[in-house]
Amino acid sequence: MTERFPLLSRIDDPADLRRLSLPELKRLAAELRQFILETVAHTGGHLASNLGSVELTIALHYVYDTPYDRLVWDVGHQTYGHKILTGRRDRMATLRQHGGLSGFPKREESPYDTFGTGHSSTSISAALGMALAARARGEKRQCVAVIGDGAMSAGMAFEALNHAGDLDGIDLTVILNDNEMSISPPVGALTQVFARLLSGEPYNTARRVGETVLSAAPPIKALARRVEEHVKGMISPPGTLFEEFGFHYYGPIDGHDLDVLVPTLANLRKLGGLRFVHVVTKKGRGYKLAEADPVLYHGVSRFDHAKGLEPAKASRPTYTQIFGDWICDMAARDPRLIGITPAMREGSGLVRFAQEYPERYFDVGIAEQHALTLAAGLACEGFKPVVAIYSTFLQRAYDQLIHDIALQNLPVVLAIDRGGLVGADGPTHHGAFDLSFLACVPNLVVMAPADENECRRMLTTAFLHDGPAAVRYPRGHGPGVPLDPGLEPLPIGKAELLRQGRRIALLAFGSMVAPAREVGERLDATVVNLRFVKPLDETTIRAVAATHEVLVTLEENAVIGGAGAEVARIVQTLDTPPRLLRLGLPDRFIEHGDPALLLRLVELDADGIQAAIARFDGGDA
Amino acid sequence: MTERFPLLSRIDDPADLRRLSLPELKRLAAELRQFILETVAHTGGHLASNLGSVELTIALHYVYDTPYDRLVWDVGHQTYGHKILTGRRDRMATLRQHGGLSGFPKREESPYDTFGTGHSSTSISAALGMALAARARGEKRQCVAVIGDGAMSAGMAFEALNHAGDLDGIDLTVILNDNEMSISPPVGALTQVFARLLSGEPYNTARRVGETVLSAAPPIKALARRVEEHVKGMISPPGTLFEEFGFHYYGPIDGHDLDVLVPTLANLRKLGGLRFVHVVTKKGRGYKLAEADPVLYHGVSRFDHAKGLEPAKASRPTYTQIFGDWICDMAARDPRLIGITPAMREGSGLVRFAQEYPERYFDVGIAEQHALTLAAGLACEGFKPVVAIYSTFLQRAYDQLIHDIALQNLPVVLAIDRGGLVGADGPTHHGAFDLSFLACVPNLVVMAPADENECRRMLTTAFLHDGPAAVRYPRGHGPGVPLDPGLEPLPIGKAELLRQGRRIALLAFGSMVAPAREVGERLDATVVNLRFVKPLDETTIRAVAATHEVLVTLEENAVIGGAGAEVARIVQTLDTPPRLLRLGLPDRFIEHGDPALLLRLVELDADGIQAAIARFDGGDA
Repeated sequence: MTERFPLLSRIDDPADLRRLSLPELKRLAAELRQFILETVAHTGGHLASNLGSVELTIALHYVYDTPYDRLVWDVGHQTYGHKILTGRRDRMATLRQHGGLSGFPKREESPYDTFGTGHSSTSISAALGMALAARARGEKRQCVAVIGDGAMSAGMAFEALNHAGDLDGIDLTVILNDNEMSISPPVGALTQVFARLLSGEPYNTARRVGETVLSAAPPIKALARRVEEHVKGMISPPGTLFEEFGFHYYGPIDGHDLDVLVPTLANLRKLGGLRFVHVVTKKGRGYKLAEADPVLYHGVSRFDHAKGLEPAKASRPTYTQIFGDWICDMAARDPRLIGITPAMREGSGLVRFAQEYPERYFDVGIAEQHALTLAAGLACEGFKPVVAIYSTFLQRAYDQLIHDIALQNLPVVLAIDRGGLVGADGPTHHGAFDLSFLACVPNLVVMAPADENECRRMLTTAFLHDGPAAVRYPRGHGPGVPLDPGLEPLPIGKAELLRQGRRIALLAFGSMVAPAREVGERLDATVVNLRFVKPLDETTIRAVAATHEVLVTLEENAVIGGAGAEVARIVQTLDTPPRLLRLGLPDRFIEHGDPALLLRLVELDADGIQAAIARFDGGDA
Repeated sequence: MTERFPLLSRIDDPADLRRLSLPELKRLAAELRQFILETVAHTGGHLASNLGSVELTIALHYVYDTPYDRLVWDVGHQTYGHKILTGRRDRMATLRQHGGLSGFPKREESPYDTFGTGHSSTSISAALGMALAARARGEKRQCVAVIGDGAMSAGMAFEALNHAGDLDGIDLTVILNDNEMSISPPVGALTQVFARLLSGEPYNTARRVGETVLSAAPPIKALARRVEEHVKGMISPPGTLFEEFGFHYYGPIDGHDLDVLVPTLANLRKLGGLRFVHVVTKKGRGYKLAEADPVLYHGVSRFDHAKGLEPAKASRPTYTQIFGDWICDMAARDPRLIGITPAMREGSGLVRFAQEYPERYFDVGIAEQHALTLAAGLACEGFKPVVAIYSTFLQRAYDQLIHDIALQNLPVVLAIDRGGLVGADGPTHHGAFDLSFLACVPNLVVMAPADENECRRMLTTAFLHDGPAAVRYPRGHGPGVPLDPGLEPLPIGKAELLRQGRRIALLAFGSMVAPAREVGERLDATVVNLRFVKPLDETTIRAVAATHEVLVTLEENAVIGGAGAEVARIVQTLDTPPRLLRLGLPDRFIEHGDPALLLRLVELDADGIQAAIARFDGGDA
């Protein structure tokens, strides 16, 4: 360590960093970049964004008096350098592993992690809250939000700008880390705003109203004053968008040039008020392979950094791929299909669809709320929108789901990826609550597939249903069953009896069907794949309840209010209700770690389920 | 009708309207305004916004070929004129009454209601979806979103603008109905943007960067060209904010002058592309009392329009008032308290707090997402934020609640008003799902008061708790119990036994405690006020389950996944589980109407509860 990273090995906190000279900072940047590359190659994680923010991270900790000054990293995909420089260098080998460092900022991990992130676009709101606190106490601290250009497209970033611009006496700096990327390539008019700012050209567009009234000239004196003001404005790029919100715009600044970054930030730090600093960086900077394909190198598994990522082996397909193939097949059959993603083209498996059906594909940016209401608008006109969205990101559009889609009973398909525990990304990304928050929504059909083919059939079922429907599937691979090539739906609200046993019946949803089968064999228990969270198959549930002593519901979702809660409601109205054990995720946020390990720890693997049943049943099950 | 409203009585749909001359349109406006005033005075409803949009409504239906052209009204507070002109004039006496017209646009009510609204800021997304559909089909229809200046502060409006600006070949018109109001007075930097546009002054602010680098002048030729462009821009107001998103800005236009409105909209209709039209109106226009106090006249109960609203009689306080007094009392005791509202100062009972503690009061605009994350940022710094929010609007900030507050276990108080059925506002405003979507969130304490004093004590409990906590209370009055003047908390997770009965036990939450008491008397049943939805009082529940044959849970929330679901989980693990009946709102959206009537229809009044128990119990209960 000391030999290969002579400077970095001496940095135990930012105070050490601040003792370095500018030439040393540049050498430190090279070391930090190499260290990040080696760390991520070893542990897996977010690579391109962390390589791109090395100099910015160094400059921020050099210039600002962290942690007294508050640094809030948006999303947190770019905080490995920050973690390394704030006392966690030697724990980086544990990154994203169970019990190890989180891949995101986390308040309990370090006082330098002022705000936990993971979802995007929260940083300006949080930093503004901190700035208000500083104002209230008369503290002179600086509060800094670092936000990517992709994250700026989300509405809540705009809400925070709008509020900040209305307040007096606030010291808040928003640093736009403009790498022309969210995870997918950028979309939205903002992208063009940033590009214009970069080009150094002043704002210039055809303005019909202006042109048509040019003949009516204003008084000469006022005109002269206005021209003068506008000349000032023209010298530096205008940045009007942010200045409209009351921020002073500074930039663009080369985010890899410490000679510019450090003095600029140092000067800005001294200024008061609302500052919007436009820093331009390159994702993957310094690692040629990642620079060339930052989307591929956004998040990686363990790999050999000397060789680069190897082409994925042709293993069994993930649920994401099942969805990606299904949407292409269904689009070929039905021209009404429209695919919508909030900035997750790759993660949601929409790359092929986007290529084959560009005119029916919409990446709306990080804008989940808009995505769902846009879909509702399309559905009003007879189209059949399919919104591909991660479970936790759907939390961002819950009101739109209830209010714009379900209440109007519009046929929108929600393809909900990452349902259940996702693994290394941890609690901000575990899809732990969707069955709870979806089950209570009227008009909605909710399905959870037990395997790949069932996922395909459920997607077809959802698409053919004349109302809102959601299919919720897990991250990663399924059990590997063969796929029907056709597009056959399932009967809505019908469960599948998988095994007839005795005394104990296991009623499983989605990913829990596989361990339920295993436990069923061990205990000679009945196993039912319920398939539909909503509507439930009441007939089957009543029949099973009448013929078994113990019922067990199984779901990879919060046990509170989840799918089992409705099974319980049916069972408990029976004349002689059987005992019912509801198994699911416990009432706490689940940490990050290998999904299989996490499932074992929460007793949702076969052994855990068997043990829980044994405790419940009081016997030797 | 024909005599007093000679023109209006002949308008059965917009085609009739389009046969009128411009002078006739003006007379029609006067009739429509009078008709709206009389209607609302008779039925109650939204008054000031509907009086303010009379001419705009007439002009839109006159110029656009509705319903072929799509008109999407944001929120829908301003659609009475639209309803009257689109065939519903004679049903206006049924407005907001059970079985009558909805107070909001509703697709099933009329083909002219292209998109159901009720919550704000969805119109641009929905209209953009419709515009995409038109583009896909090659239809030349116009899609028009009418959005207020308050609604523009919500992030999702911005998300939609950002997406629209990225698309080609879209015909979309956004009409900003700028009345300098949401429901409360406007906040946010946008307000200043609009004010600048109105003033006709070009954008003018100190730009330090520009000033400091003025000496480095650009090449003369480029400068000359830029000056020319800027001169053009200076003549009409710049509107740069919207032009940055790719919209052409037109305005401001006097929204009460049909001589301007009609030809301007007619010209704009012929233009293609993205148009942003700034129309200025006055809330309450034409009714002096409403013009003078548009906040008071935003939503009214039945009144005598010749006399105006009478001062509210000093009846027992609403839950909103209980909260409003509590927050002042607690603020006096604890300087860390910060009050936050997303644009609902009056509705949430924060008028007095805002006056007495202006420096600790933040109205963030219609920005629920930002409101919660701002609160999280403040809580990180040791403050104790109290967010006052309606139940259905909290759906807008669900991810922020989970991700920014609960996951970080930050002490933020959610004062959730309008939990349960709200009445005339109907399904978009019924707080029917909060207990379901809150119960599954780890770290969160959730309470529901049975009466006013319990509400006050629960707010204190939430505030003193060192973690996130929610108090969910209904719209309107409670049973009218006297209030303790102090600030005493309740023991967390402890239920209250109200009545010891036999055989049947009623376990009630919040507003259902009152009817449970009544049913308890009738049936000699045990009655428990559970108080805490989370954590539940397991000890009491187990004890009651062990000593009763039938348990009944009662909540004014979706029965699916609600508070009763967790009671069930405890009960069903017992060796000999009693039968359990869970009563709550059925799995459908509940229509609008008088709350007492609605509760009767869903069998959540005392008679309905008794009947449901009788059916369940099979006996003569």
